[in-house]
Amino acid sequence: MNSPSEYALPHIQKLHGYTPGFQPSGDGWVKINTNESPYPPSPAVAEAVCQAANDSLRLYPNAKAIPLREEAAKLHGLKAEQVIFGNGSDDILNLLVRAFANEKSAGYLMPSYSLYPVLCGIQDSGTVEVPFDRSMELPFEALENLDANILFITSPNAPTGVGFSNEDLARVIASFDGIVVVDEAYGDFADENAVELLAKYKNLVVTRTFSKSYGLAGIRLGYAMADAEIIDILDRVRDSYNVNRLTQAAGLAALKDQAYLKEVVGKMKSTRDRCLAEWESLGWFCYPSAANFLFVEPKNGAGESGSEVAESLFEFFKANKILVRYFPSSPLTDSFLRISVGDDDQMLYVSETIQKWLKNA
Amino acid sequence: MNSPSEYALPHIQKLHGYTPGFQPSGDGWVKINTNESPYPPSPAVAEAVCQAANDSLRLYPNAKAIPLREEAAKLHGLKAEQVIFGNGSDDILNLLVRAFANEKSAGYLMPSYSLYPVLCGIQDSGTVEVPFDRSMELPFEALENLDANILFITSPNAPTGVGFSNEDLARVIASFDGIVVVDEAYGDFADENAVELLAKYKNLVVTRTFSKSYGLAGIRLGYAMADAEIIDILDRVRDSYNVNRLTQAAGLAALKDQAYLKEVVGKMKSTRDRCLAEWESLGWFCYPSAANFLFVEPKNGAGESGSEVAESLFEFFKANKILVRYFPSSPLTDSFLRISVGDDDQMLYVSETIQKWLKNA
Repeated sequence: MNSPSEYALPHIQKLHGYTPGFQPSGDGWVKINTNESPYPPSPAVAEAVCQAANDSLRLYPNAKAIPLREEAAKLHGLKAEQVIFGNGSDDILNLLVRAFANEKSAGYLMPSYSLYPVLCGIQDSGTVEVPFDRSMELPFEALENLDANILFITSPNAPTGVGFSNEDLARVIASFDGIVVVDEAYGDFADENAVELLAKYKNLVVTRTFSKSYGLAGIRLGYAMADAEIIDILDRVRDSYNVNRLTQAAGLAALKDQAYLKEVVGKMKSTRDRCLAEWESLGWFCYPSAANFLFVEPKNGAGESGSEVAESLFEFFKANKILVRYFPSSPLTDSFLRISVGDDDQMLYVSETIQKWLKNA
Repeated sequence: MNSPSEYALPHIQKLHGYTPGFQPSGDGWVKINTNESPYPPSPAVAEAVCQAANDSLRLYPNAKAIPLREEAAKLHGLKAEQVIFGNGSDDILNLLVRAFANEKSAGYLMPSYSLYPVLCGIQDSGTVEVPFDRSMELPFEALENLDANILFITSPNAPTGVGFSNEDLARVIASFDGIVVVDEAYGDFADENAVELLAKYKNLVVTRTFSKSYGLAGIRLGYAMADAEIIDILDRVRDSYNVNRLTQAAGLAALKDQAYLKEVVGKMKSTRDRCLAEWESLGWFCYPSAANFLFVEPKNGAGESGSEVAESLFEFFKANKILVRYFPSSPLTDSFLRISVGDDDQMLYVSETIQKWLKNA
């Protein structure tokens, strides 16, 4: 044996891991590149965590996170058996791939959340990529003819922010012979969500995260809602103690403070809509966003757009300590920037920086 | 489609999940069934967690948990590239199975940690079970002829508590054409550990947990040490943000307080050795334990041992609100009980309960 990595399975040896958004070290950055909330979580969270930190950390957590399942079920009008919690919704997405993606393929749309192909790569499952066109609306025909056992739809989608109506989602779910996962990481910012479709479609899974609207990316918590049979399958694949005591305490406190959630989401939506109007008034194209970010196609001072223009603004932002996300790998995305909605001060600084860039570019 | 679970992969449909140790609700239990520490973690932990709870929970955690890797590397005289942290060491064991167990088999000893076959079942990998005999020493001949790509050895072993010397482990590692995982969940209670063997064997992985000696089962934290190439492979399979901010803060504070660890481990070892002596004085057989639990073969008042006797004491304990672990599935274990080392008050109550049982049984 020359090298211990040669013992790894062939598909693992070739694997490239997921690239998380850049996390700067040091202060002074306007970090609007990973769709984190600019606002802290509910004040009830820190209190609950401090209490949990002084209480029985020596004991294993509640294995099924029952208090969280019950609270989420109450919030969504479901039964606790229809809910499962994960170490982030990424954990849940991984469990879904492990349980449902193998001999038949896993399908997902492009562009959408780039973790799906990474999880399929670890699983060594087949994949089918279904491309959006520039409208970024669901491509029904391709989805209705898809030969896959599980299909991931991010709604509202990332990086575009475009939300899909329940009518459109239902059309896909009803025609699909397999599990449809509607990944509602940004669902709290949308006007409609797919939870009510669970009553009708047994092959539907809806996932949520605490990383965006709840301002709790740091605690790693997400959940899925589905038919109790699907939840039972996921529980068999789940690590018994996947959600630790501190995160359980934090999540429960956050779930119980819906008034705070509503207030914060309202602020982000109003900042989002103001930014959208401002950029449209510059003549920039921007997808209508039902999320906490905007996918915008900048034009330079000469009125030109394109990948060079987007990259130029990306670099100018960075030089001014503003971090946004740029996706150069596809012609559908390479003339755009994805900009998370920060607080009003941050977005004012973004506007000023855009004005400076327009003068230079 | 009749039932959504029919979409699950065939091996997943047949799967039985891991059964975690019973977690009682309500107070008043002497809970010595899951090898948790009877002592709280270092006081520095709660302080660090409270601070982290008030600081940037809205942001994603450090993706590679670099401060933890650096601190653990320092502690063990390794480089940070040789260390990876997981959401409990169960997370690490799962990554090892995903990266190294598939076409060729995964091997493990019986009895040992019952999670290995569960993880292999989720992966749908082959498995080879290597049985111990009643001596509970490593069966060298069977291990040297093992056709497997990865081999799990729990040392000190569970549920027996028997530790294996570095000399014995090196003999297995040197002859094994694959990855050897020495699972040192109970390593802090042993006189010897396998970390120093890393300098010689590139196919060795040593895993540790915070759930036992550090008294932190509730935060879910564990780590692995290995050649940097193996760590790189595991990082590709790992979820980018598998260890949350609160757990990172807690773990770092615990790692830095080695004096507290030493004190607590010393107390548990002395209680363990006292219990061992006491039970031996009753004429009971007990394996020499290098862990924080004892695997003991009780005899009833008539001097009889066996599965009925063990089960009788298990039930008598339970009726007296003492929870221990009973493994009825194998003749090597069905006449024994595994009893975690509690604090001195708890073990006094255990002794008194044994005396009562002896009078009745």
